Amino acid sequence: MSPARVVLVSGPNLTLLGTRQPEIYGRTTLAAHVAAAAAAAARLGLELEHVQADHEGDLVAAVHEARGRAQAIIVNAGALTHYGWSLRDALASFEGPIVELHLSNPDAREPWRHTSVLSTVVDGSIAGFGGLGYELAVEAAARLILR
Amino acid sequence: MSPARVVLVSGPNLTLLGTRQPEIYGRTTLAAHVAAAAAAAARLGLELEHVQADHEGDLVAAVHEARGRAQAIIVNAGALTHYGWSLRDALASFEGPIVELHLSNPDAREPWRHTSVLSTVVDGSIAGFGGLGYELAVEAAARLILR
Amino acid sequence: MSPARVVLVSGPNLTLLGTRQPEIYGRTTLAAHVAAAAAAAARLGLELEHVQADHEGDLVAAVHEARGRAQAIIVNAGALTHYGWSLRDALASFEGPIVELHLSNPDAREPWRHTSVLSTVVDGSIAGFGGLGYELAVEAAARLILR
Amino acid sequence: MSPARVVLVSGPNLTLLGTRQPEIYGRTTLAAHVAAAAAAAARLGLELEHVQADHEGDLVAAVHEARGRAQAIIVNAGALTHYGWSLRDALASFEGPIVELHLSNPDAREPWRHTSVLSTVVDGSIAGFGGLGYELAVEAAARLILR
Amino acid sequence: MSPARVVLVSGPNLTLLGTRQPEIYGRTTLAAHVAAAAAAAARLGLELEHVQADHEGDLVAAVHEARGRAQAIIVNAGALTHYGWSLRDALASFEGPIVELHLSNPDAREPWRHTSVLSTVVDGSIAGFGGLGYELAVEAAARLILR
Amino acid sequence: MSPARVVLVSGPNLTLLGTRQPEIYGRTTLAAHVAAAAAAAARLGLELEHVQADHEGDLVAAVHEARGRAQAIIVNAGALTHYGWSLRDALASFEGPIVELHLSNPDAREPWRHTSVLSTVVDGSIAGFGGLGYELAVEAAARLILR
Amino acid sequence: MSPARVVLVSGPNLTLLGTRQPEIYGRTTLAAHVAAAAAAAARLGLELEHVQADHEGDLVAAVHEARGRAQAIIVNAGALTHYGWSLRDALASFEGPIVELHLSNPDAREPWRHTSVLSTVVDGSIAGFGGLGYELAVEAAARLILR
Amino acid sequence: MSPARVVLVSGPNLTLLGTRQPEIYGRTTLAAHVAAAAAAAARLGLELEHVQADHEGDLVAAVHEARGRAQAIIVNAGALTHYGWSLRDALASFEGPIVELHLSNPDAREPWRHTSVLSTVVDGSIAGFGGLGYELAVEAAARLILR
Amino acid sequence: MSPARVVLVSGPNLTLLGTRQPEIYGRTTLAAHVAAAAAAAARLGLELEHVQADHEGDLVAAVHEARGRAQAIIVNAGALTHYGWSLRDALASFEGPIVELHLSNPDAREPWRHTSVLSTVVDGSIAGFGGLGYELAVEAAARLILR
Amino acid sequence: MSPARVVLVSGPNLTLLGTRQPEIYGRTTLAAHVAAAAAAAARLGLELEHVQADHEGDLVAAVHEARGRAQAIIVNAGALTHYGWSLRDALASFEGPIVELHLSNPDAREPWRHTSVLSTVVDGSIAGFGGLGYELAVEAAARLILR
Amino acid sequence: MSPARVVLVSGPNLTLLGTRQPEIYGRTTLAAHVAAAAAAAARLGLELEHVQADHEGDLVAAVHEARGRAQAIIVNAGALTHYGWSLRDALASFEGPIVELHLSNPDAREPWRHTSVLSTVVDGSIAGFGGLGYELAVEAAARLILR
Amino acid sequence: MSPARVVLVSGPNLTLLGTRQPEIYGRTTLAAHVAAAAAAAARLGLELEHVQADHEGDLVAAVHEARGRAQAIIVNAGALTHYGWSLRDALASFEGPIVELHLSNPDAREPWRHTSVLSTVVDGSIAGFGGLGYELAVEAAARLILR
Repeated sequence: MSPARVVLVSGPNLTLLGTRQPEIYGRTTLAAHVAAAAAAAARLGLELEHVQADHEGDLVAAVHEARGRAQAIIVNAGALTHYGWSLRDALASFEGPIVELHLSNPDAREPWRHTSVLSTVVDGSIAGFGGLGYELAVEAAARLILR
Repeated sequence: MSPARVVLVSGPNLTLLGTRQPEIYGRTTLAAHVAAAAAAAARLGLELEHVQADHEGDLVAAVHEARGRAQAIIVNAGALTHYGWSLRDALASFEGPIVELHLSNPDAREPWRHTSVLSTVVDGSIAGFGGLGYELAVEAAARLILR
Repeated sequence: MSPARVVLVSGPNLTLLGTRQPEIYGRTTLAAHVAAAAAAAARLGLELEHVQADHEGDLVAAVHEARGRAQAIIVNAGALTHYGWSLRDALASFEGPIVELHLSNPDAREPWRHTSVLSTVVDGSIAGFGGLGYELAVEAAARLILR
Repeated sequence: MSPARVVLVSGPNLTLLGTRQPEIYGRTTLAAHVAAAAAAAARLGLELEHVQADHEGDLVAAVHEARGRAQAIIVNAGALTHYGWSLRDALASFEGPIVELHLSNPDAREPWRHTSVLSTVVDGSIAGFGGLGYELAVEAAARLILR
Repeated sequence: MSPARVVLVSGPNLTLLGTRQPEIYGRTTLAAHVAAAAAAAARLGLELEHVQADHEGDLVAAVHEARGRAQAIIVNAGALTHYGWSLRDALASFEGPIVELHLSNPDAREPWRHTSVLSTVVDGSIAGFGGLGYELAVEAAARLILR
Repeated sequence: MSPARVVLVSGPNLTLLGTRQPEIYGRTTLAAHVAAAAAAAARLGLELEHVQADHEGDLVAAVHEARGRAQAIIVNAGALTHYGWSLRDALASFEGPIVELHLSNPDAREPWRHTSVLSTVVDGSIAGFGGLGYELAVEAAARLILR
Repeated sequence: MSPARVVLVSGPNLTLLGTRQPEIYGRTTLAAHVAAAAAAAARLGLELEHVQADHEGDLVAAVHEARGRAQAIIVNAGALTHYGWSLRDALASFEGPIVELHLSNPDAREPWRHTSVLSTVVDGSIAGFGGLGYELAVEAAARLILR
Repeated sequence: MSPARVVLVSGPNLTLLGTRQPEIYGRTTLAAHVAAAAAAAARLGLELEHVQADHEGDLVAAVHEARGRAQAIIVNAGALTHYGWSLRDALASFEGPIVELHLSNPDAREPWRHTSVLSTVVDGSIAGFGGLGYELAVEAAARLILR
Repeated sequence: MSPARVVLVSGPNLTLLGTRQPEIYGRTTLAAHVAAAAAAAARLGLELEHVQADHEGDLVAAVHEARGRAQAIIVNAGALTHYGWSLRDALASFEGPIVELHLSNPDAREPWRHTSVLSTVVDGSIAGFGGLGYELAVEAAARLILR
Repeated sequence: MSPARVVLVSGPNLTLLGTRQPEIYGRTTLAAHVAAAAAAAARLGLELEHVQADHEGDLVAAVHEARGRAQAIIVNAGALTHYGWSLRDALASFEGPIVELHLSNPDAREPWRHTSVLSTVVDGSIAGFGGLGYELAVEAAARLILR
Repeated sequence: MSPARVVLVSGPNLTLLGTRQPEIYGRTTLAAHVAAAAAAAARLGLELEHVQADHEGDLVAAVHEARGRAQAIIVNAGALTHYGWSLRDALASFEGPIVELHLSNPDAREPWRHTSVLSTVVDGSIAGFGGLGYELAVEAAARLILR
Repeated sequence: MSPARVVLVSGPNLTLLGTRQPEIYGRTTLAAHVAAAAAAAARLGLELEHVQADHEGDLVAAVHEARGRAQAIIVNAGALTHYGWSLRDALASFEGPIVELHLSNPDAREPWRHTSVLSTVVDGSIAGFGGLGYELAVEAAARLILR
């Protein structure tokens, strides 16, 4: 039997990780975060698939793609967290568990980052733990799949 | 003389129709809705052209394309109804009548769906009639063209 | 078998249609709109009954009257759309489909016209199509009765 | 000496009690509620007079009528509770105690039902006890008359 | 030639003038105010007609009646000043000047009295001068007719 | 069979009753109110238990204590009515009916007293009747237990 | 005995009357308005004194000057109506009647003109009658002095 | 060397876990959650200390106690999350990392649960994963201690 | 004759003074502040009594205790300043003068610190002067007692 | 060495002290307050300079004058406290300590007096102590100079 | 032919430029900025006139003075940008182009600086470029005069 | 040495310039604006690169591209100015100066255009000068590069 698949969805500007505002986002690149997440997934018997896009439309399509093929989604939507209602509607169509992930803690930053339009369609959220969040999110997804 | 052309513009996630939340959106697919709209258009001597996109940028381009080529637009912008200001500005540049269409009644759902950023640039709106709305919208467009 | 009955409910000031602010409401009288609606109803095998009142209490009574006697209601509540909570409660007691109708598009006018207190108790709304809206509303009601 | 008189004022749609939304308002008719209130009044040596109207203007007139003739008012204003400023001004002119009555608990329902425009002119309110509220209100009125 | 006619429209509860809250509204009855206004009108060669109603629907009808028959309207709408959107729409259909009149100064009272929904359809307003306001309003109307 | 038990929960500062602001709260002490409530309970075959605390934590514990031991709760939470979310969560765990009680009418006092955070977890509320409210609340609780 | 004195206080920019935005303010100059007001005052046995300033501090001083010397104030504060809290405090110290005057109807213009910070310290207001307002204001002041 | 200590702080009503609203909070008791957290801590070489209180003052004291004795805090403050400003100030005085923990996802529940007054003083938050959250929080705390 | 007594009430977290955020609160301990206040009191012939608690309920009790025994209260309520409505109600029952005291200037810090729920029941407030504030508050209390 | 200089800045209408609303501001004149402040300053080895103006521009200039010449400013800005942003910017340029002073407690009066636009540029504030506040402010300034 | 004249209007506190908060406003004095603007004007064949005042009334007068004498206005109103409605009304009376100028970018500073009450009466704005803004504003004015 | 490079980023719908709403945006095409900007750049020794896109994702990518290759960015983001938080985050990663550019003055148009989500990450903004703004923006960028 093939392993369960988790799709990690990364939103706009995340390719800048490691170079942009390291005092907020740290010095690790997105590739390194994905590798850590993939390793954590492998340890738990899961296959991790990664999609990154700066276009909301591409993220919507990625979620559509995951329907029927993946058992869980981890989503770090970047700034789209705060206004990406189309991404929200796409996620609402996914049948499996969804984990919302943020490197920093949006509630402790600018007011416009305090509202997540995704919150009503995700199962849970992990925020503020930097790169460690990727591993925690994979572990959470693994457990939610079995729930 | 060639028939008048109406462009039906469908926004993000509408390709999921018939599969997502059928208690809200019904069990009919987008293709079936478009076919019904095209049939209604044909009965009224109109040609219906359909564009669907999950990218706001593509919808903006579709509206630009319609300028000078089409006599009316019917737009079901999905979640972009509520934050797609670029689509709104594109529609504002269209000279002919525009009909806003929704399968469900946004005013009776979550608060963030109560505001349409398109409302000031459309001629009228039809909401809450499910698939029937497509036929009503075509009929409305036909009449507005002759107005 | 007698035909299904649709009650068209017209609110305050609609008797002024054709004379007041024609740039917004057009030059057709309420009588002419009702005749067009009745003709559309007849074509669809429906009987249309019309009630107009400037008193909210009379409109409430008209809705009570329609209970058990009519299969659908079309309501153009005029300014009561925006503060007629008693009319809303009356409509909430009606078992059949309800169509909200507006000649102009309230969302594109003054802010106080953007909120309909009726929206959570109607099935759908048609707005902005002038007199054509009466025919579309009858057609929508006819279809909703059969739903 | 004739007994003290209490006027029970019932607002729009209350004639539907027992038929509309029984999960909220119960299955008892308004007539039965009034009868229970009258019986409670009689036990306490009071005479209960009942007025129901769907027009705010009629309710205003009923309050005017009560001035000088009645010792207390019990008012269940239905939806007018939330926007009936004219009824509020009429009640403000009544010299005796006023009891506000609601079958359900408005504060636990839709937001627009959370505000009572009558609250600053009534002595107290009883809400959420269904039909029992009528008896409690009569008892309260009786006690307030003697205060 | 018959004299110009001014219709004075009095809203809900104004019949209580002279008895209710004299510290706010004074001790003069509505009849006395109307007589003073009529006398002022006569001095200026105008005929004053008075309509009072506790129903918004009746006030709407009174404004409809005034169309074509009267040259100006003076309106003291009582509490309807703050939520009578139907009365507002009726006044918007009147071709002549309209004077808004208040015995007390609503802006200096409770917050809900600070907003007049009539303000965008009247020519001017006179507030806070007690009974004197009736005479000032007649004088203003007389001058606006000649404008 | 032992009689049904009703727990009366009194919040902060209620021990000051009879001494603090008598123009608002009257001159009766809390002990006298409780005695009246107990007498009313006895007449109805109920046992009344009273708990007063100035600490929200103690009130939370009192509600926990009542679970499984009492059939109803009457709660006059004092100022905690307006911000005691922990008390609200405790009350939400109680299976029997809950009556909210206020001596004065909070909706007619300062704006911060207009919102009850308890309203969504109580069955009904009685406010503004002074000491009489205790008896009405016991009667209401008795009836709700039998419902 | 010397006649009663009324001080007319004119705020910033009023010297532009007759030249600025005549579609709103008319074509009459401030001098002409003052002359009309003075004539009206003379007819009523009053002496009118006029002060105009573009500085709020000067207007404050003018009000201080009027204390003990004048029997009434008429104030058209221009834009200071909406933010001149110091002028408001000065007016609050004046013992006689104060009439607020506006050429146009501020409630029917931009939202920032809807709030008068002077409203709680004036006796009444006259707005929207153009130059006629000056005469009405003098008449109102005359009557209020005798009140 | 003694192991690093993590203090788990549990707020009001958490003792009800497993009995209250299991559809939201699950059927596991607080003791079981704490045991799972302690086991996870032991696996990571940490010592877990647990404090529960229904009084905000006790939670404040527990945080004071932790200063200088513990290396990290995990806090599930229950309803105090939303108004416990004193607890917030106490947490602000703690030098080590703090993890905010919620069994359910507050952002997807009632509006008053959307705001965490703790968010600006915690390092990160974990919400919506039910009992699994306890293990994730311990893991996160372990990693933050080493950071 | 025994000297007048002033009760100094210190709220949650104030025991941390001198250790927490010295850039805001300074490096002086609470004990030192109290000593300085007591010395100032002694110089003015007053006796200073100090109560500190992290529980709002204890602070409420302390205020009750002060009734009849003390001539004035000085209150530094810490974070309870912003949501301690029960403490506010307790203070409202105190007959003597009350001085509100803050080490820092709350109006210049986070928005949630800008509102004091105590402000309507205190005589005056002193904020932003660090430890000096204690002496100023004692002096103010001394003078208010003699007022 | 010359003594340190403190400039006391008094805003609009303060010249009315002792005559205007004595129930709020007391019966002492501004001259008497200034004399008391000067005496307190002398006792502390300070020189007090006083400036009063009804023009914000003059107050701005007075603050500019104080730069480099004075060691501290005490400011009672009257109504400008609430909208004098230019005065605020001027104060922001002053290098020494600034004490905000109010005779009454603005937070306990009308809502528009609850916001001080000066709060973010002053060191501390003293409010509600009547004339005593002047002495407290001088003492505070003296101590802040030495800080 | 004499050259076109541009009036540069500088508001309160701008005389402090070069000394106040250089990290925001830079180290250049107002005189230097004006000299640079005048040089730029000369290069473009314009005459630059400069007016600075700390009084809004003086700025209003300066704008009145410019009417009929100048072809354009450049206005850096300092803090009056945010509440100077009288200045706004004065500028509204100027027939030529108006350029709003700010050294820093108000939208990126405190919230109260985000709103310009001048914005609806100016042609354009230049903000955030420090001293360079003066030259850009002159160039813009020059081009707008020719438009 | 190669010349410094400035990237001009144009957002959605700007390709319509010269055809859409010329009363707001003028009759010049985007190509003409770019040519004017390029000419101005050349005069200043700069190389101008232009990117236009209707997709926010493409604009994000364009900004990423500019990092390390360009010395400054000029951005006219069209409607994305008001909701393009992803574009904002991309711009925040750019090390050089950024100039925000608008043809019309957004603050003087519809309310939703008053807020720029880009404002906190740009150095300055130029708005309302039509095509001239392109030249001013290039000049500003040139100067900021040298800063």
